[in-house]
Amino acid sequence: MFLSLDGIDGVGKSTQMRLLVEWLEGEGHRVVTCRDPGSTPLGETLRELLLHSGEDRPIGPRAEMLMYMAARAQLMEDVIRPALAGGAVVVSDRFLMANLVYQAHAGGLPREAVAMVGAVATDGVMPDRVFLLDLDPEAADQRRGREPDRMESRGAEYRRRLRAGFLAEAELDPQCVSVIDATQSIEAIHESIRSAVALDL
Amino acid sequence: MFLSLDGIDGVGKSTQMRLLVEWLEGEGHRVVTCRDPGSTPLGETLRELLLHSGEDRPIGPRAEMLMYMAARAQLMEDVIRPALAGGAVVVSDRFLMANLVYQAHAGGLPREAVAMVGAVATDGVMPDRVFLLDLDPEAADQRRGREPDRMESRGAEYRRRLRAGFLAEAELDPQCVSVIDATQSIEAIHESIRSAVALDL
Repeated sequence: MFLSLDGIDGVGKSTQMRLLVEWLEGEGHRVVTCRDPGSTPLGETLRELLLHSGEDRPIGPRAEMLMYMAARAQLMEDVIRPALAGGAVVVSDRFLMANLVYQAHAGGLPREAVAMVGAVATDGVMPDRVFLLDLDPEAADQRRGREPDRMESRGAEYRRRLRAGFLAEAELDPQCVSVIDATQSIEAIHESIRSAVALDL
Repeated sequence: MFLSLDGIDGVGKSTQMRLLVEWLEGEGHRVVTCRDPGSTPLGETLRELLLHSGEDRPIGPRAEMLMYMAARAQLMEDVIRPALAGGAVVVSDRFLMANLVYQAHAGGLPREAVAMVGAVATDGVMPDRVFLLDLDPEAADQRRGREPDRMESRGAEYRRRLRAGFLAEAELDPQCVSVIDATQSIEAIHESIRSAVALDL
């Protein structure tokens, strides 16, 4: 089983991922966690380039999207596919949905182009369930306890487009994407996620 | 006008590119040259990762292909498209054809997937003419005056597949791709290229 958590930054993904993994392991499952982009040497290098590239090295929207895809392809090959083949539950901090939202809905690339490249990058392996933690961007800002990175520092209007993009993606695949109201308490959110996973397991 | 030179390593692309550019400039054209991957800060970083990544950072075929595409997207946005818009002749050392050959024909990825991602990466801007310098890999080996990089060191059978891949790509688009017999003298090859460009200009 392949699960991912997504949503704008500051929405509580890390906390919920930790709680979900603890619960899955308590239930006797072998769990492999990862973050996208990242979790491979190549992926972490690309992540660093993507999130912290400066003015001397501006990255355009198509190159940006393709670098996320390259990181994801390596993650699929080195981590996710072997873990699934070995019977583990994979829990990923973000996955393709974030690319569709950031680079297509909010970034202006054609959605179908991003989806098509995504199908190539993942070789068609997609999460069985995506948990979208949904929260107003201003509320998410207040939760973040660190300096914004390149993606996060693009302004309020941009982040409202991100939220709308995530909700639009969720509507496209309601069977797969569970939208979770992230204004709820940490325990209530965890309970929602746990119930949905318990049904799928 | 957008021109590219391609073919296996050691076939004489750099020499022919220099002669072509000198001739075009002598004819009064403004020429912008580039290499793919490369010619942007991001592209050069990705090129370094692609050609010199070690055992600690193995790159799978899909990630490899997508990194070439990311470099190409940035090259298109920052260099090729503005140069064409400004009326320059663009001459590129390699372009998408190399990706189709290395990652699809020789690397095992589905050709249509690579072509599709290529259309997204380039936003549909393709060379008006591709010069494929064709040479037997053993002959090309003897011309190379330096240590092989990661792509070049994969063995004779692999390099024969590359040559066959380039020729197969040329057959798919004979209107655009000129196959040049690279066993000819430097001056004879240059003359062939020059004649074809003169017809297009």
